[in-house]
Amino acid sequence: MRLQTLKGFRDFLPEQARKRQYVIDTLKSVFESYGFEPLETPALEYEDILMGKYGEEGDKLMYRFEDNGGRKVAMRYDQTVPLARVVAQYPDLPKPFKRYQIQPVWRAENPQKGRYREFLQCDIDTVGVSSPLADAEIVACALAGVRKLGFSGLVMKLNDRKIFGDTEAKYLVTLDKMPKIGRDKTLEELENRGMQTQEAEEFIKKFESAKPTDNLQSVFAYLESMGLEKGQDFEFNPLIVRGLDYYTGTIFELVSKDNPSLSLLGGGRYDNLVGMFTDKQVPSVGFGMGFDRIVETMEDKNLFPSEASSSISKVLVTVFKLELAQNSLKVANTLRGKGVNVEVYPDENAKLDKQLKYADKRGIPYVLIIGEEEAKEGVVTLKNMREKKQEKLSLKKVIEALK
Amino acid sequence: MRLQTLKGFRDFLPEQARKRQYVIDTLKSVFESYGFEPLETPALEYEDILMGKYGEEGDKLMYRFEDNGGRKVAMRYDQTVPLARVVAQYPDLPKPFKRYQIQPVWRAENPQKGRYREFLQCDIDTVGVSSPLADAEIVACALAGVRKLGFSGLVMKLNDRKIFGDTEAKYLVTLDKMPKIGRDKTLEELENRGMQTQEAEEFIKKFESAKPTDNLQSVFAYLESMGLEKGQDFEFNPLIVRGLDYYTGTIFELVSKDNPSLSLLGGGRYDNLVGMFTDKQVPSVGFGMGFDRIVETMEDKNLFPSEASSSISKVLVTVFKLELAQNSLKVANTLRGKGVNVEVYPDENAKLDKQLKYADKRGIPYVLIIGEEEAKEGVVTLKNMREKKQEKLSLKKVIEALK
Repeated sequence: MRLQTLKGFRDFLPEQARKRQYVIDTLKSVFESYGFEPLETPALEYEDILMGKYGEEGDKLMYRFEDNGGRKVAMRYDQTVPLARVVAQYPDLPKPFKRYQIQPVWRAENPQKGRYREFLQCDIDTVGVSSPLADAEIVACALAGVRKLGFSGLVMKLNDRKIFGDTEAKYLVTLDKMPKIGRDKTLEELENRGMQTQEAEEFIKKFESAKPTDNLQSVFAYLESMGLEKGQDFEFNPLIVRGLDYYTGTIFELVSKDNPSLSLLGGGRYDNLVGMFTDKQVPSVGFGMGFDRIVETMEDKNLFPSEASSSISKVLVTVFKLELAQNSLKVANTLRGKGVNVEVYPDENAKLDKQLKYADKRGIPYVLIIGEEEAKEGVVTLKNMREKKQEKLSLKKVIEALK
Repeated sequence: MRLQTLKGFRDFLPEQARKRQYVIDTLKSVFESYGFEPLETPALEYEDILMGKYGEEGDKLMYRFEDNGGRKVAMRYDQTVPLARVVAQYPDLPKPFKRYQIQPVWRAENPQKGRYREFLQCDIDTVGVSSPLADAEIVACALAGVRKLGFSGLVMKLNDRKIFGDTEAKYLVTLDKMPKIGRDKTLEELENRGMQTQEAEEFIKKFESAKPTDNLQSVFAYLESMGLEKGQDFEFNPLIVRGLDYYTGTIFELVSKDNPSLSLLGGGRYDNLVGMFTDKQVPSVGFGMGFDRIVETMEDKNLFPSEASSSISKVLVTVFKLELAQNSLKVANTLRGKGVNVEVYPDENAKLDKQLKYADKRGIPYVLIIGEEEAKEGVVTLKNMREKKQEKLSLKKVIEALK
């Protein structure tokens, strides 16, 4: 028996689970302030809903099996194909349909640092309109989300897939790497892929000197109306390609100004995907966020506020034998009624020392000791665990101190 | 291609997803106020972690398959066995370990009204102590949770598994049904299972006249200290059995006073389960909640507050062509800065009528119209969608009206 999780799967113990919850709650509040609403789809779908939608790679990495009833089923691989199914299955959903979806997906990729087989996806999409206003709103909402999380020094790079016309995919893949590998290596790779030296140089120059399309001009105007500054918060970058081949218009990527290879999220307009299960085109725009990268970067940059990383309980109330414990429970109840998160040590047979050690290990900042002496005097002892100080106080004073 | 979810699996469209989120958020806030912390475990585990832990039935209903690497894996079937794995795998977790866990589980049961193949479980457990104080705290926390959700007229029925001594399981199963099938039918079934008439009568009488154990007396004393009233909030009921055979002490069930067959949650002490992966006994107590039943009962009883069931957006801001739309976006931005959830109609080419219909369909209570006229006059038109009234106001007045 292996006492372990599967490779690429993780337990989230309380400290980690709380941080992740903080990120989710923060993002949701921003998404909802822009009118995006929650959607949830099942972990399992009929296999034929998902198969063939993610290329050969996707079919290979998907978790698929036959259920007890002999149905071929597959586990959620992303949130866009299920969105397309929902849009087709419920034709009465009000359009534009603006939804966010934050659920785990499963991919049997080779696990490595920052890449897992079970991971949370965080997407917002506006379905059913093709206006640049919708594109701008998605971009603004993404920026508002990461800012609310405390990020700064980020810039949203925008481009329009249309500037590439019918350029061959293999050349675009190379162009996409330029921010990482540099101009010289890019030229070299273009030559390896079949271009003449002169041709490669002109190819790069052509995009380096490209101008924003009319569509992008409108997106920029809308972004400025929403209080975002060109050159500071967002910029035109004709070299952004975005790997996924389903984008059809505006594309964008949020990168760190110091470290352009750190991309926190990306997205764009994809007008030919959400309609896949209908006989109509359903224009859509959205972004997907690397949730784990967000959490890891926030840890690196110390962006978690103390309430997300410290103990949820403000105070531990100690207990000693039945009658004293009853008194402790009453006190705990009073504090809880005042909105204080209170933990009672759940074993009246434990020595005080054990109870204090527990508070320390859990990082609970205060301990309320109510022993024989305190009960007689009608007071409580409040111990500040960090400062290692304690004093006898009335319950009233304790409430004031803890609020 | 079947455009549908698998039998027993559900999509949660925004209205339903919001209600479920409200229930989750409310319960979490209560659990955390009692010092319970979040834990998450993976959807997939090695099969041998889960197999054989839920009886023959469980092995049959579990979703199991071989992954691409030939590993035998199984989908989460409950949250107690994963908890036992976590406790064994991370021996340094501070004890007592108090955790809540709210994740979907998968069981290939025959779907029927209120029973699904993918459903959310909501559990809290205190692991590592055997004190009745821990039992009382779980009960109090459960009651606080359902009250915060707006339930009333409920009573927690408590019993101690020890009063049954070594009574055969088949008789206990029958006794368990008495609240539903009545005393006469219970006698009949006991006879069918092999008791003499006289014996069956004495069997029932013996438990009807049973007294609370010392353990239960302590639990009751603690519950009273936490402000709960005996006979009103909780009561001793020696006929509560709880189906699961792993309980070892205190057991409880929360039922409706009007309708004793409506059980919202149940739980108890189970001292021989969480240690299954270790060589030690790990005393534990907890409860599990039928999340779907909670949501369905809240719908029946109209317990959802308006913020959980109405539109998240307070106001829809209309848009008309680029310059006017830019003005609308500025206004939306200002409102959002004041904490108002604002939606901008994301298509500046849509007619006003279409935009109003959208607000109506979505249930957004207000629409802010900023057309050519309003822009010129420096005002906005605020339309109350329910009262079908509208008036021209300054933005300042609108902010006051919407806050």
